Formats: sequence, structure tokens, C-alpha cells
Amino acid sequence: MTIKDIEHIRKHYQDNQDRLLDELMDLLRIPSVSTDPSHSEDIINAVHFLKKKLDTLGFDLVKVFKTPGHPILYAEKIVNQDSPVLLVYGHYDVQPPDPIKGWKNPPFEPFVEDDHLYARGASDMKGQVWATISAIESILKTDTLPVNIKILIEGEEEIGSPNLESFLKEHKSMLECDFVLNPDAGMLAPDKPTITYSLRGLAYFELRIIGPKADLHSGIFGGVIDNPANVLSKVIAGMHDEKGRVTLPNFYDAVRKISDEERQQLSKLGMESTFYKTLTGVSALGGEDGFTPIEQVGVRPSLDVNGIYAGYIEKGAKTIIPAYAMAKISTRLVADQDPEQVHQSLRTYLKQNVPSSVKWELDYLSGALGYLVQDNAPGVDLFINALQKTWGTEPLLKPEGGSIPVATSMKNILGVDSIITGFGLPDDQIHSPNERLHLPTHRKGVEALIRFLMSFNYQG
Amino acid sequence: MTIKDIEHIRKHYQDNQDRLLDELMDLLRIPSVSTDPSHSEDIINAVHFLKKKLDTLGFDLVKVFKTPGHPILYAEKIVNQDSPVLLVYGHYDVQPPDPIKGWKNPPFEPFVEDDHLYARGASDMKGQVWATISAIESILKTDTLPVNIKILIEGEEEIGSPNLESFLKEHKSMLECDFVLNPDAGMLAPDKPTITYSLRGLAYFELRIIGPKADLHSGIFGGVIDNPANVLSKVIAGMHDEKGRVTLPNFYDAVRKISDEERQQLSKLGMESTFYKTLTGVSALGGEDGFTPIEQVGVRPSLDVNGIYAGYIEKGAKTIIPAYAMAKISTRLVADQDPEQVHQSLRTYLKQNVPSSVKWELDYLSGALGYLVQDNAPGVDLFINALQKTWGTEPLLKPEGGSIPVATSMKNILGVDSIITGFGLPDDQIHSPNERLHLPTHRKGVEALIRFLMSFNYQG
Repeated sequence: MTIKDIEHIRKHYQDNQDRLLDELMDLLRIPSVSTDPSHSEDIINAVHFLKKKLDTLGFDLVKVFKTPGHPILYAEKIVNQDSPVLLVYGHYDVQPPDPIKGWKNPPFEPFVEDDHLYARGASDMKGQVWATISAIESILKTDTLPVNIKILIEGEEEIGSPNLESFLKEHKSMLECDFVLNPDAGMLAPDKPTITYSLRGLAYFELRIIGPKADLHSGIFGGVIDNPANVLSKVIAGMHDEKGRVTLPNFYDAVRKISDEERQQLSKLGMESTFYKTLTGVSALGGEDGFTPIEQVGVRPSLDVNGIYAGYIEKGAKTIIPAYAMAKISTRLVADQDPEQVHQSLRTYLKQNVPSSVKWELDYLSGALGYLVQDNAPGVDLFINALQKTWGTEPLLKPEGGSIPVATSMKNILGVDSIITGFGLPDDQIHSPNERLHLPTHRKGVEALIRFLMSFNYQG
Repeated sequence: MTIKDIEHIRKHYQDNQDRLLDELMDLLRIPSVSTDPSHSEDIINAVHFLKKKLDTLGFDLVKVFKTPGHPILYAEKIVNQDSPVLLVYGHYDVQPPDPIKGWKNPPFEPFVEDDHLYARGASDMKGQVWATISAIESILKTDTLPVNIKILIEGEEEIGSPNLESFLKEHKSMLECDFVLNPDAGMLAPDKPTITYSLRGLAYFELRIIGPKADLHSGIFGGVIDNPANVLSKVIAGMHDEKGRVTLPNFYDAVRKISDEERQQLSKLGMESTFYKTLTGVSALGGEDGFTPIEQVGVRPSLDVNGIYAGYIEKGAKTIIPAYAMAKISTRLVADQDPEQVHQSLRTYLKQNVPSSVKWELDYLSGALGYLVQDNAPGVDLFINALQKTWGTEPLLKPEGGSIPVATSMKNILGVDSIITGFGLPDDQIHSPNERLHLPTHRKGVEALIRFLMSFNYQG
């Protein structure tokens, strides 16, 4: 496989990058904050700004779909019925700018300083959407697009995409594609192009241990009544063994083994002890014995208390035995682990470990499957090549400890894998004041996207 | 030892018990609620009502002492410098009547129905104070008092006696006595006269486990960071072993053994499994193996979580690893256990058991010594005899799992033991609507008090 000469496309981009940046700044001036109803007009303005842009690029279809919430922009350009179809995912909504006083410049008045473009949404993810549009424009103006492109840009990602799944289901045939490009993740450093190849799933519970009919006097009853808060502590403590492994029955049954190759790959990420200690401020890490930090968060499941409550928690002392105790407990799951099986496993554990002196109630609040991009997923190799050629270095393949629900939905509903990537950086301050986009990285990203899209010419 | 004939005194009481009841009802009409500033005039009225009564009985000294809070009434009648001195403790303040709507009759309009006198303070403890005054009056009107009597009646018991300790210290020589009669406890049933012979002490702590510098995303960091809520649960779980024993180093060193005699005594109280299950609504009891319920709360120390908090505890799910976790933890101690030693013992336990991945902070919020009436404490035998003679049954000797700070203060400051007793019943509804006094028991109580006071004639 040879990479086609893209110099003429690159040159076009370079000649036009200032104008494209100006257009991005216009988009960033629209405060499309999805969570705040006072910005509903801005939401409409943002979606129509993008519709107009795609219209001018000559897409076959550009349509704004209403949803019960904010609209979804959909566009497609079918160049050849026999060519593969790429679905590009993006979102045009942004986080609220709060706390406003943290911003050096107003959040919706973009400005450039020291190679960075500052504005709310610059990195997450108007800048990423714009990188893709810039690449497509550059190709369309100078050459022939060798791949069919569909674009879906939603307006509710920052509020949990409440209407995306039903949209995917309703428009399944329209959205039919071979794979998805999701540039809503990022890179580990400006010199480290990155692809996220797995996400962890989730099973989230609320557990209540119920004891006496009311709070009791701890003097009169201390020593004779099993205290629900002590029982809960014991039950939680028993969920890990001395090696930091989760003790729920059969919890690890579906967890796949890490190959030597994957271990080696993970070790290249540089996400080592110091990385996590610096990020979190702790003096020592914990977790499961026998695994490196990135293995612990990336390819191993975990169990955490997210909240715990019982009795008197204000200032000072109150001498009670609480009537009940509650904990929010969640597990992060790797691919092949089934949240519902984890739920049953937790029930079994509780049946075996909660003493008969108290009652217990378990609510299963939410579950999500983990996700692992298939080794042979279409497009991934091409994307790796494009990154490598652009940066002159081997891209990093990174597991993500959290979840990207959009990618999981695409897999579950459309049946396709996502190339989860992007050209944002860890210090872009997304969701915080002074969000910014590193322009040299952004421009390299556009170049990589051009390479990626043009590489379809040379497929089998 | 023979018991002196007290028939003439008893007859006087019987002839006058209706008038004495009317006077008690007048006292109960004064809403001397100590916690509510709008009742400050009633507080003054109540203390002067009692002062006037003691004046008419011919006490040598009757004086109202100002304190930074509500006044303390003090009176004394010294009959013979060589006779023993009894200090009677009481309080004239009452709990608020709330919830008002729960009362069948207004709380400060006492009325009698079915052998019960209903009013706020009827049992706790104006009725108990009045029983003592009734006994003293009956003796003074018909015979010679064979014991020196000092009386201290405070007005802040229901708000924690904030000014009592400094009063005891300031007037230590005035209050010099051989023992105290504290009728602020009660009986287990109308046919079961009861003396409380021990109180448990307390050591109360707040423990904080501090992890990352801020709440972390449980996906991105789950598995690599020691979660403070999980760590806290484990630390708490480790504070008891499989037999329900507290594992803090040296915790039981000072705990005295229970004698066979004490065990037998305790078994007579009828405070068995069913008693505690009915009271609390639990289906099974817990606690330390090898001890009966009353032994567990009465003569064994205990450790309880009084409150616990970390992370997200509202409705729904939030996927965080909490930055810190907090628990209020208290131990109930038996006589000879030193709260400060327990504090040090807990610190040692934490040093040994908290992992280095988190920090911990421990606040020692309060401590109180346990209290055990000495076997040879003056007056106790006489009181037991008086109860036995009056009820025709052996009085119960009961350990109290909670604390009675007044009794502990008397021991610590004046160096004397208290006879902790009273003629209230478990169903007197103290601190609740429809508080009441069982009049037949009250009258038997007066008779027992007459017997007790007159029995000093025959000492030594």
C-alpha cells in the first residue's frame, strides 16, 4: 500500500487555514450551552451555522432533525455506492462556562495567544468537528473524495445524549455505515497521536442496610444491636481481598487475559505511577496486585464506593446507632463482562455476607457494557497509518477507564466500531475556565484526517 | 438491725397525700421549660415555689444561687454534726411539651385519670423531687430526722447541666456529704424497685480518611487509587473481630471480669433477647459472643459508628471516587476504662491499619469515665432494705448502658457515690406527649424514702 500524494490538498489547507480558523471562531462565538434553557436560541444558531457550512461544501443531503431536546444535524455525501461508508460523529453543544470569573478572557470571545485558541468549546469539541470539516473541504476543493461520508452532529452530548439512542434506532438505515470516526477523545501529548481502543462498562448500585426501626441511643443499646453502619462497612470491606481483587462470586470469569503484546503496548503510554500520583495528589497508589496503573484502569475491572451515608454527620457528636446505612457502589467492567451478571453476583455476595440481624435492599441504578474495538475493525489500520505518517511516530493505542456512551450506542444499535480519537490534549482545560485548543496539533490533526480520508483510494 | 416503726409517719403521709398531690400539681402548672428563653419567668417561678416549700418545712438554709444560666436551689437541714450527710439531687426544669398536638390534655394542666397523674414533668422529675419532699415533710411533722440532709435542685438538667460542674467545684465545702440520692432514674416495672449501680463511660471520635486532592472520575481512576470510602469501611470493619470483640489494642485490659454473682443478678432483670428485639424492631441481636444482652450493654464496653459520610449521597448515581471519607465513632466504656487510653489505643490501631496511600485525621470529641457504685458505698444497703421492706420483694440492681453525667460529676468533684434510683416507670412517656406518673408507685416510693431516711437511726 502506498500513500497517495496529498501535497496539493495540504497546500490548499495551509492556504486557507486562517480563514477556516476565522470560521471556527465564529462558531465558538455562539454560546450553545445545552444544559441552560436560556441558550436555546444559541443552540439553533449553532446547528444552522454548521448546516450552512456543510451546504456550501456540496453535501448531497444536509438536514436538521428535531428531537424532544436539541436538534441533530445530519449530512451525507455518497460518492460511490460500492465504496465504504464513514460516519463522522460530533457534537455542537458545549459545557457551561462557569465559573465565569476563572476566565482570563470572556468564554465566548475566542482569541489566540501563544499558539492556543481560547474559548469554551475550542477543544470539546467544536475544534474537533472543525478539523474534520476542514479536512473534507480541503479534499473536496482539490481532489475527489474516495469514501462515502455521513456526518451526525448532536447538541446534547454534554447533558448525556438523552435523545441520541432513539435517533440512532429510528434512522438506522439512513445511518448505515462501515465504521464511525469519533474525534471526541484526545491525545496523551502533542507528540503522541492516540487512538482509544477500549472503554470500560459500568454497573452502579445503591445498597441499604436496615437495622432498628429508629435511630437508637448508643449507650442504652450499644453492644446488643448490630449497627447498620458497622455492618455496611464490613460488607464493603469484604468486597476486596488482601490483593485488591474484587471478591464478588464469578466477578472475573468473563475478564479476558492481557496478552504480552498488549502489556507491552500499554507500557509505552507513559501512564505510570508518577503520572497518576501527580494528577491526583496521592502519595501512593492502590488497586489490584500484579498490574501496572494503566492496566488497572484500562483492562481490569474495579469496584468503588461512590458515596456512603449513615446517622449523624454534622458538626459535633450525637450518640446514636443509625437505623439504616446506605452506600452507592459501582463497578467498572471490561469488555465481555455483563453488568446484569455483576448485579446477580453482588446479590449472591450480599446473601452470603449480610448477617440476619439486619435487612438489606439493593437497587441496580444503571449498567453499561464495556467496549473493545475489534482487532480487524475497518478503518483503524488506515487511521493508524495516517497518524504515523503525519507525526512520524507510532500512534499510541490506549484503553479508556471511563465510558464513551456514544461509541457504545453506535456499536449496539448500528453494529459498527468507532475509531475513538481526537486532537485535544490533556491540558486543554475542557469543562474548566480557559478551555483552549493547541493550534499546531489541530493543524496536524487536519493533515492526518486528510491522509486518512484519501487512503481509501488504495484499499484492496 | 431492726427497722424502726414508721407507722405514725406513714399515717401522716396518708392523711396528707391529697394535699401533697395538690401542691405537686401546682408545681406542674409552672411550665419551667429550660431550653426555651420565653419560659425564663416560669423557671424563676418554679425555683421560688420550691424555695417556699422548703422554707415552710423548717430547713436551716434555703437559698437560690444564680448561675450563668438558670438558678440552682440549695437547702440544708443539719440535725447532728456527727450524723451522716445525705445530698439529694433533683431538677425542676422540664422538657418542652412538643409535639403539643400529641397531648390528650394540655401539658401544663395536670389531671388525674386511672391512677396516673398526667403533666409534663410529672415523672421527669418534679414528681420524684416531690416524693422526697413528701417523705421529709412527713418525718419532720411527726418525728425527728435522723440524718443531715442537703438538697440541690438545678434548672438545667434537660439542657445538659452546663453550669452544674462549676457550681459543684465552687461550693464543694458547702456540698460536702457522705452520699447522694439521685432519684432521676427509674424502675423496670411497678413491682420491680430498681437501683442503677453502674453507668458506662464514653469516648467519642471523628475520623477522616483523606485521599486524592479532589473527587475523581471513577472510570478514569477506578482501580488505581485507594478509595477513601473503601479504606474507611475496611478500617471500621477491622475494629471488631469475628466474635464481636473490639480489636483496638489493649481495649479490654482494664475491663473487670463479671462475677458469677453479678451474672445471676443481671439474669433477674428480665432484659433478655425478646425485650431488646421488641424495643428496637430487629429480628436478631448482635454483639459480643458469650454475653447476654444485658451483660453486653451493662457491663461490657462497645464500639459503634454513629455516623458515616463520603461522596455522593443524593438520589441517583454520580461516578466519583470521593476525596475523603468521615466517620463518627464512639465507644461505651465500663468502669476502670480510661477514655484517654482508648483514644491512644484507637490512634495505635489507625497507625497499624490505615494504608499509606491515604492520610488520616482523628478528633477526640469527648470522653467520660464509666461509673460503678462501690460495693460498700454508704446508704446503698439501707436503700435496698427500704425498697425490699416496702415492696416485699428483692430490689433489682441494674447496670445502665448510657451515662448519667450528674452522677459522674458528683463522684469526680465531691468524691461521693450516688444511689441512682427513682419511682418512674418505663411507660411514663417522659420527653413525649402525655407524660405521666403512676400514683400508687409514687406513694410506695414516698413510703420507701421514709423508711430509708428513718433507718439511719439504727446505724452503727
